[in-house]
Amino acid sequence: MPSEAQMKEAMQAYIDAFNAGDVAGVVALYADDATVEDPVGSDLHRGRQAIETFYGYAVGTGARLSLDSPIRASRSNFAAMAFTVSVTYEGQPSQFRVIDVMEFNEAGKFTSMRAFWGNSDIVQMQ
Amino acid sequence: MPSEAQMKEAMQAYIDAFNAGDVAGVVALYADDATVEDPVGSDLHRGRQAIETFYGYAVGTGARLSLDSPIRASRSNFAAMAFTVSVTYEGQPSQFRVIDVMEFNEAGKFTSMRAFWGNSDIVQMQ
Repeated sequence: MPSEAQMKEAMQAYIDAFNAGDVAGVVALYADDATVEDPVGSDLHRGRQAIETFYGYAVGTGARLSLDSPIRASRSNFAAMAFTVSVTYEGQPSQFRVIDVMEFNEAGKFTSMRAFWGNSDIVQMQ
Repeated sequence: MPSEAQMKEAMQAYIDAFNAGDVAGVVALYADDATVEDPVGSDLHRGRQAIETFYGYAVGTGARLSLDSPIRASRSNFAAMAFTVSVTYEGQPSQFRVIDVMEFNEAGKFTSMRAFWGNSDIVQMQ
């Protein structure tokens, strides 16, 4: 099982690669057969190709992620983080408040990502 | 399915009841057959009696919970929140950084709670 520090480093690498516009860098953090549920309650993106398509779109929006507070680990192969996504949405500067939970495999890759946010977590900025 | 607003109200009620020392109020937010995994990776507390025992202990520590950022909903029956627990731990004023994910039933009660935190999320304060 990856250590708490290894999981937190992978979560931080996800934030940094996303903000650098590095789609390949984000996708490389995932296992080949991983799933992405973003937001929770929507259809899963399953496998490397689907995940690459998803992040190609997401990174292409120009969104920027900033942590709300330090990344959390656990006593098993899960970690979680609360962050704010700043993006232009429907023509308005907006913020999406999100909590991501990642599950890890032995190699320290994400096997699943679940993003908790709903319509009530979207805030249009002035 | 409970609305996003209903789920967020229940999460806030959890924080408020905990901080008021109201164990019965916390337990009343759970379904009878709910499970609590706190921290993730530890044994489950299953059912009302086990959950009441767990919160009797947790509230009895004098811990206080404060949200790090607004509670998140989802597009299904899950909500999540990042918060900091302030408590005396091993004789030292300490903070535990936690993310809770709750699953809800049709009645708006928690059917499961998973608390993401590890040893690296405990900070001893001066």
